[in-house]
Amino acid sequence: MTANLHQDRTASPAPEPGYDVPARVGDPVSQVATPALLIDLDAFERNLDRMRAQAAALGVALRAHAKMHKSADIAKLQMTRGGAVGVCCQKVSEAEALQRAGVGDILVSNEIAGAARAERLARLAERGRIAVCADHPGQVATLSRAVTARRAETGSDGLTLDVLVEMDCGGRRCGTGSVAESVALAKAIDGAPGLRFAGLQSYFGRAQHIYDPAERRVALDISIALTAETRDAIRAAGLACDRVTGAGTGSFAIEGASGVYTEIQAGSYAFMDADYARVRTPEGTTPGSFEHAFFVLASVISVPGPGRAVGDAGLKAVAVDSGLPVAHGVPGAAVTGVSDEHCNLSDPQGRLGLGDQVRLIPGHCDPTCNLHDWYVGVRNGRVECLWPVTARGKVF
Amino acid sequence: MTANLHQDRTASPAPEPGYDVPARVGDPVSQVATPALLIDLDAFERNLDRMRAQAAALGVALRAHAKMHKSADIAKLQMTRGGAVGVCCQKVSEAEALQRAGVGDILVSNEIAGAARAERLARLAERGRIAVCADHPGQVATLSRAVTARRAETGSDGLTLDVLVEMDCGGRRCGTGSVAESVALAKAIDGAPGLRFAGLQSYFGRAQHIYDPAERRVALDISIALTAETRDAIRAAGLACDRVTGAGTGSFAIEGASGVYTEIQAGSYAFMDADYARVRTPEGTTPGSFEHAFFVLASVISVPGPGRAVGDAGLKAVAVDSGLPVAHGVPGAAVTGVSDEHCNLSDPQGRLGLGDQVRLIPGHCDPTCNLHDWYVGVRNGRVECLWPVTARGKVF
Repeated sequence: MTANLHQDRTASPAPEPGYDVPARVGDPVSQVATPALLIDLDAFERNLDRMRAQAAALGVALRAHAKMHKSADIAKLQMTRGGAVGVCCQKVSEAEALQRAGVGDILVSNEIAGAARAERLARLAERGRIAVCADHPGQVATLSRAVTARRAETGSDGLTLDVLVEMDCGGRRCGTGSVAESVALAKAIDGAPGLRFAGLQSYFGRAQHIYDPAERRVALDISIALTAETRDAIRAAGLACDRVTGAGTGSFAIEGASGVYTEIQAGSYAFMDADYARVRTPEGTTPGSFEHAFFVLASVISVPGPGRAVGDAGLKAVAVDSGLPVAHGVPGAAVTGVSDEHCNLSDPQGRLGLGDQVRLIPGHCDPTCNLHDWYVGVRNGRVECLWPVTARGKVF
Repeated sequence: MTANLHQDRTASPAPEPGYDVPARVGDPVSQVATPALLIDLDAFERNLDRMRAQAAALGVALRAHAKMHKSADIAKLQMTRGGAVGVCCQKVSEAEALQRAGVGDILVSNEIAGAARAERLARLAERGRIAVCADHPGQVATLSRAVTARRAETGSDGLTLDVLVEMDCGGRRCGTGSVAESVALAKAIDGAPGLRFAGLQSYFGRAQHIYDPAERRVALDISIALTAETRDAIRAAGLACDRVTGAGTGSFAIEGASGVYTEIQAGSYAFMDADYARVRTPEGTTPGSFEHAFFVLASVISVPGPGRAVGDAGLKAVAVDSGLPVAHGVPGAAVTGVSDEHCNLSDPQGRLGLGDQVRLIPGHCDPTCNLHDWYVGVRNGRVECLWPVTARGKVF
């Protein structure tokens, strides 16, 4: 866990704290330039350990979703200490950034558009384990052409890209729309030069965030039954379908125990955000009992009136698509609004003064991480490591 | 308007299109790696010309708000072709990035926290025209200490930082809370070693987005009257108060015609977003009649069912704090939802196929720009320039 100050976005050989990086290793937290992403390393490590144990108990593989944190350092820790078999991400450019930084097994758990991107994916498959999803024969044709072209260019006849069928199991986003369509697509992949049919992607994003355990269970039971039916139909058509992958932090215990899923794609478990903390199990706990290990550290820049403070973390430092961030550790304080560069805080007990730091728990960690260039890892009040957000901005 | 491929975030001497940059100069738009920020250069230039003419007609200086675009290239065009006297921004790190890239006159139109940041600001004042706001004597003391310390270190006794009083004129965010407080703070600045009292900042952010012209007028009349009263009281206390700065794209015509404001801080006028397009003048037009010159270019990655398409621009490519993006130029199509890496589109006329590009008008341009590393400037269907988002992620 050492600082990596030489990753490719900082050309300067000596990054300048406060300009290029938010802190130096060894600094007390009070010296971190805010707003900054803070990782409580003790809580983060406990989260990795908890998920490793739970995936093992469920008997499923963990494929950690790196779209959440976009960090090669964190991905590698998830694959070592955290027991993950590999990672997934959503974009070819993310996969490129992670592979360049040494992550060897990546599933692009999404569809991709265009010949140029397919070619980039084929090149990635030359260098590491890569898989991608498809939900339409047009994508399969594009991927196949890209791999066969690379075979011809490089003379490597063995080059093969793993392609999974993505089915719509309830999310109404991407995914095949019927069992018959899934079977036909699996056959198309199986018959396409350069491609290998590698299983079923069945991810129900919306179900992750159904707070009520009974409602979530109902939604997932339908989804899991449809997934099992699709898998069985593909097998009945004569294809192996050994890998069924999906699930996330809010639902992994249910899909993981179903006997249908072989792999779970949780991401937020490592950090936890305010929205996942609202999701409840039948026992009244949060799924997996993960801790908040991730904060946006803000500073008070103005105390304009009694009971009010203004922080320096706005929309460009913390995502609000899943609600306002939650002020942590300041009794009575709450975020009441966020604009581009400011967050308004109510502070009825008058605890906040000019320059004071406040930890904010983001409503949604994924788009919050993508706003920053660095994670500041802290333990015992000091900065222990700086990790680049390796794939920050890699959205294409 | 040439590509600047060597700015400090790309260490590679030959940035790779699709990985480091979204396109090459000369490419047809169809080859741009999506999602990407697109500037329609013709419309953008017309917006600059329109604002130059309107500010001149109002008899006020234009200080373009660079927090919107965070681009040194665009800031410089606003100061040359666009007639701006300088720019403003919200963060010391933004000012550093813009000054490093050659922008010579910058107002940090915000309060700042802490001694470290004050020292950085003092260093910036050594190298160019810099001003900052304050709303509390504590900030004034911190700024004064920083400048006097720099004077001692460098032997440059003339080093002076311009500080404006920020008053709350209705926004309930930062700003002094009464005329008496403003006067006292102006005197404190005037008496602080190393600082020069440089005028009044009076910005009413919320008023920019009041769609109804009569309601907006009422809100601004109150705000302008309070601003005039504050200015007059500062003058009555024996201080010059020649600069009154504020206003934005939704309201500049009103503050600009008030006789109170000397400088307007519009930013979004250069690009226009979907939310500003909802603001109406009494004549039923939008303030300033600016055109949409700015888009997030997305591609269709999935056509999962009749009348539906899924694009590759999600929350990490387009901000949704001011509503969903608006699909542009595809008859009948509309964005119905946005998740981390996807946007769902309804497409009742079935116009969208796999790989097709769609232009999206973001609800809010500022936080959208901050998500990307590059602007792709297009004219006549081809990429004419690539501009780095110079201060992308400079939130501290």
